[in-house]
Amino acid sequence: MYFSSWLSQLYRGFSRPIGRTTQPIWVPLSRNLMLGSQRKMPEFSSFVARTNTCGELRPSHLGQEVTLCGWIQYRRQNIFLVLRDCHGLVQVVIPQDESAASVKKVLCEAPLESVVRISGTVISRPPGQENPKMPTGAIEIKVKTAELLNSCRKLPFEIKDFVKKTEALRLQYRYLDLRSAQMQHNLRLRSQMVMRMREYLCNLHGFVDVETPTLFKRTPGGAKEFLVPSREPGKFYSLPQSPQQFKQLLMIGGLDRYFQVARCYRDEGSRPDRQPEFTQTGIQSLTEGLLQYAWPGDRDPVVTPFPSMPFAEALATYGTDKPDTRFGMKITDISDVFRNTKSEFLQDSLSKPQGTVKAICVREGAKYLKRKDIKSIRKCATDHFNQEVLPVFLKANSNWNAPVAKFIEEEHGLELTRMMELQEDDVLLLTAGEHAKACSLLGKLRLECADLLEGRGVVLRDPTQFSFLWVVDFPLFFPKEDNPKELESAHHPFTAPHPSDGHLIYTEPEKVRSQHYDLVLNGHEIGGGSIRIHDAELQRYILSTVLKEDVTLLSHLLQALDYGAPPHGGIALGLDRLMCLVTGAPSIRDVIAFPKSFRGRDLMSSAPDSVPPEELKPYHIQVSWPTDSEAEKGSLNHSLHPES
Amino acid sequence: MYFSSWLSQLYRGFSRPIGRTTQPIWVPLSRNLMLGSQRKMPEFSSFVARTNTCGELRPSHLGQEVTLCGWIQYRRQNIFLVLRDCHGLVQVVIPQDESAASVKKVLCEAPLESVVRISGTVISRPPGQENPKMPTGAIEIKVKTAELLNSCRKLPFEIKDFVKKTEALRLQYRYLDLRSAQMQHNLRLRSQMVMRMREYLCNLHGFVDVETPTLFKRTPGGAKEFLVPSREPGKFYSLPQSPQQFKQLLMIGGLDRYFQVARCYRDEGSRPDRQPEFTQTGIQSLTEGLLQYAWPGDRDPVVTPFPSMPFAEALATYGTDKPDTRFGMKITDISDVFRNTKSEFLQDSLSKPQGTVKAICVREGAKYLKRKDIKSIRKCATDHFNQEVLPVFLKANSNWNAPVAKFIEEEHGLELTRMMELQEDDVLLLTAGEHAKACSLLGKLRLECADLLEGRGVVLRDPTQFSFLWVVDFPLFFPKEDNPKELESAHHPFTAPHPSDGHLIYTEPEKVRSQHYDLVLNGHEIGGGSIRIHDAELQRYILSTVLKEDVTLLSHLLQALDYGAPPHGGIALGLDRLMCLVTGAPSIRDVIAFPKSFRGRDLMSSAPDSVPPEELKPYHIQVSWPTDSEAEKGSLNHSLHPES
Repeated sequence: MYFSSWLSQLYRGFSRPIGRTTQPIWVPLSRNLMLGSQRKMPEFSSFVARTNTCGELRPSHLGQEVTLCGWIQYRRQNIFLVLRDCHGLVQVVIPQDESAASVKKVLCEAPLESVVRISGTVISRPPGQENPKMPTGAIEIKVKTAELLNSCRKLPFEIKDFVKKTEALRLQYRYLDLRSAQMQHNLRLRSQMVMRMREYLCNLHGFVDVETPTLFKRTPGGAKEFLVPSREPGKFYSLPQSPQQFKQLLMIGGLDRYFQVARCYRDEGSRPDRQPEFTQTGIQSLTEGLLQYAWPGDRDPVVTPFPSMPFAEALATYGTDKPDTRFGMKITDISDVFRNTKSEFLQDSLSKPQGTVKAICVREGAKYLKRKDIKSIRKCATDHFNQEVLPVFLKANSNWNAPVAKFIEEEHGLELTRMMELQEDDVLLLTAGEHAKACSLLGKLRLECADLLEGRGVVLRDPTQFSFLWVVDFPLFFPKEDNPKELESAHHPFTAPHPSDGHLIYTEPEKVRSQHYDLVLNGHEIGGGSIRIHDAELQRYILSTVLKEDVTLLSHLLQALDYGAPPHGGIALGLDRLMCLVTGAPSIRDVIAFPKSFRGRDLMSSAPDSVPPEELKPYHIQVSWPTDSEAEKGSLNHSLHPES
Repeated sequence: MYFSSWLSQLYRGFSRPIGRTTQPIWVPLSRNLMLGSQRKMPEFSSFVARTNTCGELRPSHLGQEVTLCGWIQYRRQNIFLVLRDCHGLVQVVIPQDESAASVKKVLCEAPLESVVRISGTVISRPPGQENPKMPTGAIEIKVKTAELLNSCRKLPFEIKDFVKKTEALRLQYRYLDLRSAQMQHNLRLRSQMVMRMREYLCNLHGFVDVETPTLFKRTPGGAKEFLVPSREPGKFYSLPQSPQQFKQLLMIGGLDRYFQVARCYRDEGSRPDRQPEFTQTGIQSLTEGLLQYAWPGDRDPVVTPFPSMPFAEALATYGTDKPDTRFGMKITDISDVFRNTKSEFLQDSLSKPQGTVKAICVREGAKYLKRKDIKSIRKCATDHFNQEVLPVFLKANSNWNAPVAKFIEEEHGLELTRMMELQEDDVLLLTAGEHAKACSLLGKLRLECADLLEGRGVVLRDPTQFSFLWVVDFPLFFPKEDNPKELESAHHPFTAPHPSDGHLIYTEPEKVRSQHYDLVLNGHEIGGGSIRIHDAELQRYILSTVLKEDVTLLSHLLQALDYGAPPHGGIALGLDRLMCLVTGAPSIRDVIAFPKSFRGRDLMSSAPDSVPPEELKPYHIQVSWPTDSEAEKGSLNHSLHPES
């Protein structure tokens, strides 16, 4: 019955490049952005002084008198000028006759990127001068009047996508960077996709959009929340790291089918959320329908339902909770092959608890991987996992070329070849150790190898392919890293236990699976959610007995659960990451209008900024200036500042 | 061409009751909320375990097997039970036969407000037992199975609209208060209207929805902005009081047609924004179309265009910049009548600069206004304006009954009667003084009198009538109150001067009108906007020479204006206030899910809250505890904390 789903805007701080940027030249955004074929075209020139946008003009407009507004993109020999608006480019012919001297003067003297308004007639370009690469390339404008609306001074960089600028310069002059075709496309596509999601939720499925507060009480474990001093001495608000509590309170308040495009203030991911059996499926179907409905019309349609994989399988096969299922190179457990090996190292590993020998196979690796690649792979293993990885090359003569080779008896070699379908020139990367650690290592190396192979021209991951995957059946608790005898929540303490494991909560909580689910796209987590605990007693037991948390900070939520809380759950989608994948942008900063730098600074306005002591007074705070030694330590320890 | 409009969510702190609450009993929200007649009905039971909502069942469902989920609203003699969900109420017949003993037990023992799932058959109520006041009153449910999903403990108040609770209790148990029919209606209508606005802007007119940052640099005059300490010693972010700068930067960045449903962090109104002549009209038409499109389908349609009134006229006629034009009682300048009066008081007032004598006429006031009313009107005048107001009663014999009467010569009395169309039993409220002050006083008394008359049963302001009005041609600057020789912005320093007055900026800036416009509905400002300055030189001149502001805090904006800023403008609508007027809610807290109390506290979670010193450390701040005498002063001086 009741459920909440929401689309949180998650900020992940520093992001590494993902995929390739598809750099569109000026295709008409209006057409490009149409997300459903049957939709009515919006009127882009209603209520304004222009009659048309620059980018929309076609031979069908021939002979029409038009008024256009835009920026001067470039000028050729004082004869042609290209005018740009957010819908594209159009060529304007500068009149050369005496009678139009004033028009010529305006158009020839205005610096590039100045704003002008022109009016004139749409005419055909002379035969042979058409530009088939430009959507408006068959026509040009014969100008009658021109008016300089605002002049532009010398630019710090050219507004052309092919002109490379540093990221710092782009962020400092963000308002100029936003004029690029790529940024225009990304932000407009984002707006359109979010609008489609809203239509799906509100208009098709009766969801209600509720805004929740930004200034709230801090939550347990809220050390990562921003504080906002109030005018009451010593009292602070907190910027909530997610609308986590509010969505539960809305469910308890009977606001069935709530969603929100929310902001999360935190430098980590944030997690978002119903009763048992029947609900997880409902939320998953809803999310699939939502993405299918909102997907850009110019891509392959989203196929539903998405496949689903238990966390344990994801870890064992891909070494991660967010597998990129666009390619194989799966992890194989080859422990049995080495049960009776003479290698002490392998024997030793196998004898430990959860000890395994595992491998991935890089097909034709011997052809593509160079000596330095193998070296860097081994270095990666020792650096990040403090663990050895052994490369095994299968040579043409089917001999094994590896330090471990001497321990592989012929019978076992054949078994290994069969198990992993080994062929000539394949390279095996083998490791031994504790199950989860060995899997994580090989999961990491699998992605490293994919990068290396793609660098050599092998196509493993089709950038036009979108592989969605549900990862389910996560553990509810993990042992704490610093004290493995205590447990902590794998996601958050409000996640409901898996219905089949409910009885274990009181006896073997570490074995309980949760009703948390992650949505993964091409190896990136784009969403996560859970069925929530709606039983106040169970929630209290988990918080105080299992997790040993201080429950006073959550008393309002625990109290609310007592008053007829309906079973509920939901999901949060990370719009930044999703838009990154859809547009192929290298960084989430390319899908956000005014992003912070990865140090949390706004390079345009240089925020955060100093505040004079008298302005701190009403908030009853003063700055504790660090000593020199503290300052030094602090600078190494700079943590990320959330928000987008 | 370019323009930005946005829908800011403004918070006005403490709000006084406006209009009457129309308390709907459980009308089916689904139908009630349909905002356009041609729209497809959303599916409220997709992806969930119920087959139907409680509120939607009608005789057309007779014989259907249904599964419903909801809260137990009440129970009668263990025979009937009323189940509630957010779509309404339905009657459930508790089975009495032996074989259904377990179902009976569940339904009879569960406390009120517990959550249950039932399944059964829709049957007709026995003849004579139908309830025509209840939308589902013709049918009831014959239950087959029942399951208790969550039990409810004893409630702090009953979830019935007619049970009165204090506002503090409502806010403390907000999640229970949200279950009321009124709150459900308000929040769902708000979601629907905002969705319609989005459709109008995005789908019909090609606007782009861009989210702007919440953590930013403080702005000049930002003493009212919340500060957010960063991990850099002494450096602070600020929660922007409006996306004021961002919307301009987006225009400069070529993000033509931007809008946002934004939050403003400030305890005052906030103001929102293009080139000359052709643009103000465009924004006004857009806003009119937007409201017309988004208006609830069950009200009278919004008629466009809205009337427009210059600020000077609004002040002279209604004594305010937000006139309630649903009723007359206009201010009349009667100075000429008293030019040669013998009253020293009046003569004295008229001889001063801008000196006037003005009056409003309360029709049939002698019938309705009691002696104590007149006393309270006079007290209001002296308390708020330190000014005398003289009541003049026009008696049946057409004699004047007032202290000033003796100064009114017959000729002038007739003139006054003619000018103000006076009739028997009318009461004249007369004042003398400086033009603006006299107008403000009478504007205030006009509303006081309307309240008094309506308290006596006279209908002046039809609560179902919506009178929109544009107020335009505001002054660009006002003299500072504490130093009238200096000027300050009437709205904000980015507002463009009126094109006809542009030349006066350098000579007589106090005479320049602005391109600011306010949208007024029934005497409340629901929106405001302006055409912005796009010329960097003019902006610099106004900031530094006219206003004597420190421009360093705005250097990024001034720099941006230099790089081909297009002419632009826009508007911000206050959604809280608008929803208040549409729903007739007495307070904006009734159209916000989790409002703060008027002292800025969250009564549910008791935020703001104390933070232990070790959690302040990463932000390099410490609390400056006030001394006892400061604390005392502070408690009297508690200022409002914005946000919703």
